[in-house]
Amino acid sequence: MNSEAQQEHPQDNCLRFSDIRAAAANIAAHIRLTPVLRCPQLDDRLDAEIFFKCENFQEMGAFKLRGATNAVFTLPETAAAKGVATHSSGNHGAAVALAARRRGITACVVMPENASSFKKRAVTEYGAKVIFCESSMRGRETALAEYVSATGAAVVHPYNDIKVMAGQGTAALELHAQVEQLDLILAPVGGGGLLSGTAVATRALRPGCSIIGVEPAGADDARRSLELGRITALAQPETIADGLRATVGPLPFAVLRSQVDDIVCVSDESIIRAMRYIWERMKIIIEPSSAVVAAAMLDLLVDVKGKRVGVILSGGNVDLDQLPW
Amino acid sequence: MNSEAQQEHPQDNCLRFSDIRAAAANIAAHIRLTPVLRCPQLDDRLDAEIFFKCENFQEMGAFKLRGATNAVFTLPETAAAKGVATHSSGNHGAAVALAARRRGITACVVMPENASSFKKRAVTEYGAKVIFCESSMRGRETALAEYVSATGAAVVHPYNDIKVMAGQGTAALELHAQVEQLDLILAPVGGGGLLSGTAVATRALRPGCSIIGVEPAGADDARRSLELGRITALAQPETIADGLRATVGPLPFAVLRSQVDDIVCVSDESIIRAMRYIWERMKIIIEPSSAVVAAAMLDLLVDVKGKRVGVILSGGNVDLDQLPW
Repeated sequence: MNSEAQQEHPQDNCLRFSDIRAAAANIAAHIRLTPVLRCPQLDDRLDAEIFFKCENFQEMGAFKLRGATNAVFTLPETAAAKGVATHSSGNHGAAVALAARRRGITACVVMPENASSFKKRAVTEYGAKVIFCESSMRGRETALAEYVSATGAAVVHPYNDIKVMAGQGTAALELHAQVEQLDLILAPVGGGGLLSGTAVATRALRPGCSIIGVEPAGADDARRSLELGRITALAQPETIADGLRATVGPLPFAVLRSQVDDIVCVSDESIIRAMRYIWERMKIIIEPSSAVVAAAMLDLLVDVKGKRVGVILSGGNVDLDQLPW
Repeated sequence: MNSEAQQEHPQDNCLRFSDIRAAAANIAAHIRLTPVLRCPQLDDRLDAEIFFKCENFQEMGAFKLRGATNAVFTLPETAAAKGVATHSSGNHGAAVALAARRRGITACVVMPENASSFKKRAVTEYGAKVIFCESSMRGRETALAEYVSATGAAVVHPYNDIKVMAGQGTAALELHAQVEQLDLILAPVGGGGLLSGTAVATRALRPGCSIIGVEPAGADDARRSLELGRITALAQPETIADGLRATVGPLPFAVLRSQVDDIVCVSDESIIRAMRYIWERMKIIIEPSSAVVAAAMLDLLVDVKGKRVGVILSGGNVDLDQLPW
């Protein structure tokens, strides 16, 4: 298979840099080129140069719009006509809803009954149909399967999908264009979509740059899975970082195994402290799932001294009536 | 007096554009060139192009560092040796403290006993001596006068000082360089330092651009003073926008009378709603005193339709344990 054919058939289950470049072209008209901000106090404290890629400023408040837009807009016309569907308790649902509205097709998001009203509102505001299900992975999958079999809608998986992973990788693609010569890049790990896209973009553009993922200690399935060499789900992930509770998917896992240098884990206490640090010093709003990376640096779990460090701040969707401090 | 002499003697009590240009040079090494951010949802809602100059990202969290730095760094050596002093319950105190620390001189900030512990901490963290006084303008002035007569320290007034006003004007100077062809510029009004600097910079750089100040309805002394043609203090200003409770000073007032097109007033309810709107949509932290301008736009008190509008977001120092919603 030559490289052109690979680009045409990315569903050969291996994320390539060409997929990410194609995604960047596909989504350019629909996403924001987010700014890169600095935090001089943090630079001083860590003796490093930290560059924050602010995906919290992305439309709908998270990088998730990148992957969802790539998946929704590359669906063939006939498939798209039947709409799209996904299950999500958070940002991915809102991202699919917004991307579908823009393409003019229907979207359905299966959400657990106990999802916060804050998140339910975001999804419905973007015009998606919401189906509530019981709060378990099985409950979600059953409800989604029923909807899909009734409607023929295309499923946009939150992370185990090459189109989605490629879209998420465009954040790092942009960051390397905005900031040269990074020595290290850090991203959170949930299902692995963002980290795998970040890794493939970084290996292609800046081969010597280290790639480290950060995971909540209470949802450290990616770290365990990499250690054991196979995907290992946790029975009951527990963390405030609600975007990072998912189990790493097989497609992202294949990338993480070969291209990520390390995964480090942080406690919820550290996450909350780091989140507040970023709010107070940088005056920007990040959600707990984004704060994991700042927590890893503040806890000195990652050696950043003297380095140029890129950080993907993944999102800023926080219920301002329910702050964790 | 030729124009060079004016630049050398700005204390002739009239703020000139040359003062602002000189201030920009004086403070360049000590302040951040803050970014300009957009809010597409707000642009859509108002059918306008709004450009937010993010002084909430300024070091110590507010534009106040500009004026304080200009005043502290232009003090002659002999005067500086005796230190600087001011009274402030908020950002100006922290700004003077930081500027003085950088110049290596002592700073004293007179603060009302009932100032929030959040604000006391900021001032002491930057190394200033704090003197507590009773919570009234007379109490503050008495305590400051006592300190100054004992030490010979130079007073850096929060707004009624040409050096301070000139420093505050550098935010608009930067904004006009970052964004061309603004039709309208908006800034909050407290003592009038920021608005007067903004007006003089704007009249010089973009003569056709309208200049409008926004004031809390519960502290509308600037609006009343302009209507009556003389400074009119309120007995008891009441607003959540704690940075805007001061009475407009004579030196800023002279500028506002001749160069500002209008002052509009917003309720505290609108301020809180607008503050939350900006937090949620832009994912940035602004304080109530900054939110007045967004409130004026959201309440349609200013006609922005079809215009390119510059907004000075003055600061982002908020006690995250005491949010107003």
